[in-house]
Amino acid sequence: MKIPEKFHRLFETRTYGYLATVTPKGLIQNHPMLIFREGDKVKISTEKSRQKYRNLKADPRATLLVMDPENPYSYIEIRGKVESMEDDINNAFIDSLCPRYFGTDRYEKDPPGAKRVTVTIKPEKIFTFPPGA
Amino acid sequence: MKIPEKFHRLFETRTYGYLATVTPKGLIQNHPMLIFREGDKVKISTEKSRQKYRNLKADPRATLLVMDPENPYSYIEIRGKVESMEDDINNAFIDSLCPRYFGTDRYEKDPPGAKRVTVTIKPEKIFTFPPGA
Repeated sequence: MKIPEKFHRLFETRTYGYLATVTPKGLIQNHPMLIFREGDKVKISTEKSRQKYRNLKADPRATLLVMDPENPYSYIEIRGKVESMEDDINNAFIDSLCPRYFGTDRYEKDPPGAKRVTVTIKPEKIFTFPPGA
Repeated sequence: MKIPEKFHRLFETRTYGYLATVTPKGLIQNHPMLIFREGDKVKISTEKSRQKYRNLKADPRATLLVMDPENPYSYIEIRGKVESMEDDINNAFIDSLCPRYFGTDRYEKDPPGAKRVTVTIKPEKIFTFPPGA
């Protein structure tokens, strides 16, 4: 499943993705996320105390919507599943996103003791608008 | 369940909401939507040939994320259920959103014969960021 090249630039700018997951009680959660593309997979960062982490541990379904910030009629929706969740040792992954999103070298929004996890999502269906873009 | 006043302005500007629903096959769909607030409920418009319509007919769960376009760390997430789905006679509802979103009087993005439906979503949980905003 390919992430079309046309949308690669959204993963290179300060664009947030909107990640929909399902809670253990069956509610749908939809939250903004920092996003990273590695080939045709998507990586996100979450923290072990977060609802999102509990959701993805219990239910691997994850759908990411990424909008072109300049055009609400250009977007990609990636429906996928968690392929792996790995401890983010020394915050290497989240820190690597900071120059792009915040113009800084380190992620400083977590409380002390936060335990970051890097989640890799493998797409199973990809929809774009306009279709076929 | 109250939609906090601080976020009302997002329903008065050209802000899209991101609506997450579940397909009959159990996949999560996440799509941008025009949004309208009526008191503490949210109204959206969809069309009878759309996946979103089939999803909401089969499963009333609907979660709407609305971001402050000027600040990605200010947003409201509304988890709710479909309260009603009504035929949009003469496109009265979708047309009423057009001055705000498109600066026009009529919605012209549908193919001929499209059948619009107005969906009212009743919030069951509301999360804001920052919390308590």
